[in-house]
Amino acid sequence: MTNKIKIGVAGLGTVGAGVLKIINAHGELLQARTGTRLEVTAVSGRDRNKDRGVPIEGLAWYDNAADMAKDPDVDVVLELIGGSDGVAKDLCVSALTLGKHVVTANKALLAIHGTELAELAEKHGVSLAYEAAVAGGIPIVKALREGLAGNAISRVYGILNGTCNYILTEMEETGGEFDNILQDAQKLGYAEADPSFDVDGVDTAHKLAILTSLAFGTPVDFNSVYIEGIRDVTAADIAAAQEFGYRIKLLGVSRRTDKGIEQRVHPCMVRTDTAIANVSGVFNAVVADGDFVDSTVYVGRGAGEGPTASAVVADIVDIAIGRHSATFGIPVEEMSPLPMASIESHVGCYYVCLTVYDRPGVIADVSAVFRDENISIESLLQRGRSESEAVSVILVTHEAQEASVVRALSKIEKFAHSVATPRMIRIVSL
Amino acid sequence: MTNKIKIGVAGLGTVGAGVLKIINAHGELLQARTGTRLEVTAVSGRDRNKDRGVPIEGLAWYDNAADMAKDPDVDVVLELIGGSDGVAKDLCVSALTLGKHVVTANKALLAIHGTELAELAEKHGVSLAYEAAVAGGIPIVKALREGLAGNAISRVYGILNGTCNYILTEMEETGGEFDNILQDAQKLGYAEADPSFDVDGVDTAHKLAILTSLAFGTPVDFNSVYIEGIRDVTAADIAAAQEFGYRIKLLGVSRRTDKGIEQRVHPCMVRTDTAIANVSGVFNAVVADGDFVDSTVYVGRGAGEGPTASAVVADIVDIAIGRHSATFGIPVEEMSPLPMASIESHVGCYYVCLTVYDRPGVIADVSAVFRDENISIESLLQRGRSESEAVSVILVTHEAQEASVVRALSKIEKFAHSVATPRMIRIVSL
Repeated sequence: MTNKIKIGVAGLGTVGAGVLKIINAHGELLQARTGTRLEVTAVSGRDRNKDRGVPIEGLAWYDNAADMAKDPDVDVVLELIGGSDGVAKDLCVSALTLGKHVVTANKALLAIHGTELAELAEKHGVSLAYEAAVAGGIPIVKALREGLAGNAISRVYGILNGTCNYILTEMEETGGEFDNILQDAQKLGYAEADPSFDVDGVDTAHKLAILTSLAFGTPVDFNSVYIEGIRDVTAADIAAAQEFGYRIKLLGVSRRTDKGIEQRVHPCMVRTDTAIANVSGVFNAVVADGDFVDSTVYVGRGAGEGPTASAVVADIVDIAIGRHSATFGIPVEEMSPLPMASIESHVGCYYVCLTVYDRPGVIADVSAVFRDENISIESLLQRGRSESEAVSVILVTHEAQEASVVRALSKIEKFAHSVATPRMIRIVSL
Repeated sequence: MTNKIKIGVAGLGTVGAGVLKIINAHGELLQARTGTRLEVTAVSGRDRNKDRGVPIEGLAWYDNAADMAKDPDVDVVLELIGGSDGVAKDLCVSALTLGKHVVTANKALLAIHGTELAELAEKHGVSLAYEAAVAGGIPIVKALREGLAGNAISRVYGILNGTCNYILTEMEETGGEFDNILQDAQKLGYAEADPSFDVDGVDTAHKLAILTSLAFGTPVDFNSVYIEGIRDVTAADIAAAQEFGYRIKLLGVSRRTDKGIEQRVHPCMVRTDTAIANVSGVFNAVVADGDFVDSTVYVGRGAGEGPTASAVVADIVDIAIGRHSATFGIPVEEMSPLPMASIESHVGCYYVCLTVYDRPGVIADVSAVFRDENISIESLLQRGRSESEAVSVILVTHEAQEASVVRALSKIEKFAHSVATPRMIRIVSL
């Protein structure tokens, strides 16, 4: 007699359809790998009659996904609906409460309710798995939770949003400005009609909050993530970055500091010779630094039908084999709510771009402000030479505290020769 | 009452000492992650009194590691001795036979006896884990076996030997020749006194044979691996590679072809803009291509105390938690012994370097040979111009079959104007 695991798929968008395709294509392979037949028994979607490129005849259909949890013919629920609340959450709560395993690709849900759901999973002795929620096809959840389990993690960071990385790569390659590249990306399907979730850094922050919990064994704390998107990155910034040997990437960075755990999402200047700087287009990458293993790098596709579905199926395989793990690597009751460091206490190097009238004394005034804030300047570069028009002054600082840099920029903004609000991009030493 | 898992460490070299250090340093963390106390109860090494930077007082000592398997106070045996036979194998066989889990870092053992040991582990219902055997700190065994379990793998390849990658990187950066760089590497401790295992590609081949089994679900077949080391790579080859936009790396490549599974280890020309080309020095990297996930890349330290011990501890954590997997991803009885393709049937592009007298007609003669073997030439470059002295002629071919290229080179070698044996390096399109 063959073991069988009965799967209910809630959400038949790209990822849901991808999962059905994998299970159809690799039924025998998956059976060899798990000793179990993976059988989809129930599905739920918006439109029963839509062609998804994969047959759903003969499967139980649910108009309301939340009802699927109660189906006695469903052992594992795949929540592929999305959204941090509503039916996605209802479904997960009722499935876990009924003692059914849940596999989800929903980063928003885990970033907001991850700890509470993990507790529920533990209480009922089932798995809550979410490899697909972070960096799609890259098995980074497994790597952090299991592969690096012998290490205290000091830092985890990455390119976690393909849309942003695509836009920044295109900006660099074409010299174009954000708005134009975004429009092209929307036409090509690499950016959503409403791109805010991606380009404003929220999606990256959701994923980072999950990685932080996994890496440091602390409850998920999305509200502590400092978030800044890529809308303000200009072609001039990208050109200046190149000149200084940097590339601009939107990173999510989480690291252990004296002041607590820093969680931040913002455009970063990274040296062009680092692994992360060379991850282009829609690819994602994660770097995890452990005290014994040193630095490990993981690169792959962060989204799309195949890669995301691949991650969902890996979670199903774990469940089918009985490879159970605590949701965030350690049980919720073992978690310690670590202090979170504010962005103001961040210490690092900064790229600063000022727009000023090129009058005698302007550099002296700027330098004095930095000196007064105890910020030492590594290099300074003036662009253009014109007494009547504004010019750019670009500075790179040595290590300085964010609060000091913010104060300095605010003083400079008030100068008579300041034309625009000074801008800064954090430099990340990797 | 706390669960406890009792560990016997056989082999107290770098890796063994590293494992003791991790367990000492992270006792609480590991207990939180596993719900179990990891306790080393017995050790075995060459010299009981050597200072390893970690205390072994109070632990049972075995002069003969093979005896450790019988210790009732040992649940898990760590085989960190090395060598494909002898005491390492004896210890593993007796531990598995006694129903004890085995964790090993021994690639030679698994490459030669992997299938037989996997069968033994299955028969006795225990784990045979070996994350540390391939690419040290990179959790690639777990990624292939679990993280990519939803995919049929089409290809897996990588830089699996840090010594070779260090030497090739140094050759490129300094322009030096192999012998000199090897001597420097030996002085710095990056190469062994007898470097053959590394530089002749055997170590890479051991690891590749393991990856092949994991990726394709076929019994480990080390004898089918084509092996060519890096001793013959010259500074001139490296310079020529740069000119054509390539870098030379020693890769282990395993891929599914029409003719069977190709397993080969040899110097490769890889495009400089690929992820693998940018992995320098002692770092390792593995790329795994799956049909749904597409390409995934893993980079990290391939050797050394911390990274290797980190991998060993990850395996212990899996065992402590009860996350059990078939040794090579599927049980031995489900494995299919796939046909293995010979290197002669390999199809790819080739870099060819000829050393000839620069006489009229030499290029015509060379071209005719390639034409007769049905090999089309992508580019041809003559180095130097001297009727009396030998010059280099460098060719890059379009896709051709290895057997044809070998025949062509053998014909050219017999030319009157040939000065040295023609050499070739395979170009890998990644």
